[in-house]
Amino acid sequence: MKKYKDILGDGGSNIVGQVEEQQSRLKARLAAVRRIVAILSGKGGVGKSSVTANLAAAFARKGSAVGVLDADLNGPSIARMLGVRGQTLKVTEAGVQPALSADGIRVMSMDLLLPSDAAPVTWEAPTQAESHVWRGNMEANALREFLADTAWGSLDLLLVDLPPGTDRFPTVAGLVPSLSGTVLVTIPAEVSHLVVKKSITIAKATAAPVLGLVENMAGYVCGRCGAIGELFQGSRGEALAAEFDIPFLGRIPFDPRLAAAGDRGVPFLADHADSLAGSALLEIAERVRAALTSSPWSSPQWGEEKR
Amino acid sequence: MKKYKDILGDGGSNIVGQVEEQQSRLKARLAAVRRIVAILSGKGGVGKSSVTANLAAAFARKGSAVGVLDADLNGPSIARMLGVRGQTLKVTEAGVQPALSADGIRVMSMDLLLPSDAAPVTWEAPTQAESHVWRGNMEANALREFLADTAWGSLDLLLVDLPPGTDRFPTVAGLVPSLSGTVLVTIPAEVSHLVVKKSITIAKATAAPVLGLVENMAGYVCGRCGAIGELFQGSRGEALAAEFDIPFLGRIPFDPRLAAAGDRGVPFLADHADSLAGSALLEIAERVRAALTSSPWSSPQWGEEKR
Repeated sequence: MKKYKDILGDGGSNIVGQVEEQQSRLKARLAAVRRIVAILSGKGGVGKSSVTANLAAAFARKGSAVGVLDADLNGPSIARMLGVRGQTLKVTEAGVQPALSADGIRVMSMDLLLPSDAAPVTWEAPTQAESHVWRGNMEANALREFLADTAWGSLDLLLVDLPPGTDRFPTVAGLVPSLSGTVLVTIPAEVSHLVVKKSITIAKATAAPVLGLVENMAGYVCGRCGAIGELFQGSRGEALAAEFDIPFLGRIPFDPRLAAAGDRGVPFLADHADSLAGSALLEIAERVRAALTSSPWSSPQWGEEKR
Repeated sequence: MKKYKDILGDGGSNIVGQVEEQQSRLKARLAAVRRIVAILSGKGGVGKSSVTANLAAAFARKGSAVGVLDADLNGPSIARMLGVRGQTLKVTEAGVQPALSADGIRVMSMDLLLPSDAAPVTWEAPTQAESHVWRGNMEANALREFLADTAWGSLDLLLVDLPPGTDRFPTVAGLVPSLSGTVLVTIPAEVSHLVVKKSITIAKATAAPVLGLVENMAGYVCGRCGAIGELFQGSRGEALAAEFDIPFLGRIPFDPRLAAAGDRGVPFLADHADSLAGSALLEIAERVRAALTSSPWSSPQWGEEKR
C-alpha cells in the first residue's frame, strides 16, 4: 500500500485514476442492488449493529435477498452477530464472495480480514500517532473497496451498519449516491438523544430520505418477576422523532436473549419471533419495508414480490 | 479557519510554526497537571463517559483538583453528565476558563462550543462528503487546542474521555507524551470484548501503563423484586483482563439511578455513594489512585496529601 506522502505526490501510481476506476466499478456493482439503507446513530453502543443484524434477518426470513456491509472498520461486530466469523473469503473472477449467514445473509466486514480478535486495524504509517492524518482517507478507500469489490450479486436490500461518530455518515453518503434511506437508532437516555440529534441533522441534510427512528433498550424485563424496569428514565424516542419531523419506527425492549444471540451468532428471530423484542423487530422491519416500497424514488420491486 | 487546500499549500500561514508553537504551549500548560489518564474502550456506549464523570467526582470528593477533557468531539456527553451545559466559557489572559461542575471539576468539551443540541461538528470543507480527507487532522488540532488553550490551572488529575473507535487513542497519546496511564472500559457482552481487545492491544503498545479494565453494566437490579438479572451473559471482564495481563479494576452493575443522574447532570455519588454502583465506583477510583501513586514514573504527590 502506498504511504500518504506517496499519495500526496502521486509517486507515479495514478491514484486518482485508480479511485475513479473503482468508483465506476462500485456503480456497476450496486446497479444490481435494489435498495441500500444506512443504519446510523452517531452514539455508540445503542445497538446499531444488533438492529442491523436483526432487520437483515427479518427481511431474509421473508424471502428477500439481503446483504450487510459492516462499515465499522475499527469496531466490527456484525460478523459475530450473524455467525459468520471464521468463514474464509473466496476471491473469484466476479469479486470477493461475501460470507453467508445461516439465514442466507451476505456479509462483508473488516472482521473477516483481521488475523485475530486482538488485532486492531492500523493504516500503514510511519507512526501510529500520526495516523490521524490519513485515517479518514484510508477508511473511505476501504469502504469503497468493500462496496465495489464484493460480489454482492443481485440484492433486494443492502444494509450498511455505520460506526459511532456523527462525522461518518457523509463519507458513506458520498460513496453511495443511490442511497435509498437512513434508519436512526437511539436509546432512551438523554445523553444519547444529545448525540443522535446531531446525526438526524446530518441525515436530513442528505438526499436520501430518513426512514425513521428506532428506540432500542426501551425497558428491561426482569427474568424473575416479569416486571418491566426502566434502564433509562422515560421513553422519549417518539417525542424526539416528532421534534425532527421524522417517522418513529418503534421501540425494542432490552432482552438478554437478544444480546446473547448476538454474542453466539445465532438468529434471535428463529427462536424468539414471538417475544416482545422479536415482534418489535418484525414490526420495525415491516415499517421500513413499507417506507421503501411506497417511495416514488425507488421504482424497482422487491424480489419476493416477483417470485 | 484555513481550508485544507490552503494548509497543503501553506498559503503563507506558517501553519507548521503555528502548530509547533501550540505544542510547546501545551507542554507548558500540562506541566501544572500532575497526572493525565485516558479513559478508552474502542467500543461505543459501554459507559466511558459515565465512568469518567463518576471517577472524576470520586476524586474531587476526596479533595483532589480534577479536570476532564471530553475528547469525543462528535458525540460529547461529559458536559451534560457533569451538569455544566450552558455555562459560558470565559476567555482570559491565562486562556479559556473551563466550565466548573458542582463538585468543582473543571470541564472542557466541544459541547460547550456548539450553538444547539442538534448542531453537529462540521469541519469547514467544500462538501461534507469530502470532509473525511482532513477530519482526522482537524480533530487532532482541536484536541491540541483544548489541551493547550484551556486554563486548567494546577490539577492533581486530568481525565481524558476518548470517543469510540480503536483508532482514536494514538492521536491523544501523540499529543500527550506525559500520559500517566490508561483505563479501559468494557461491558460483559462478547461483541464488546471483541472490540475492547483491539484497544487493549493499542493501549499496551504505548509507553503509558495500562492501569486496568473496568466492567460496566454488569447485571441489572430489578426495582421491584431486587433480583440481579444479567443484561449480558456471564461476567468475563476479569478473564479478559487476565488474558491480557492487565489489572482488573472492578465491575459496576447497571443502576438506572446512575443513568438518570448522568441525564440530569447531578453527581450520582452525592446521594448514592452507598449503593452497589456507588461503592463499586469508589473502589475503582481507589485502585486507580493506588496505581498512580505507587508507580515510579509519577513522582509528584497528590494535592490532598500535601494539604
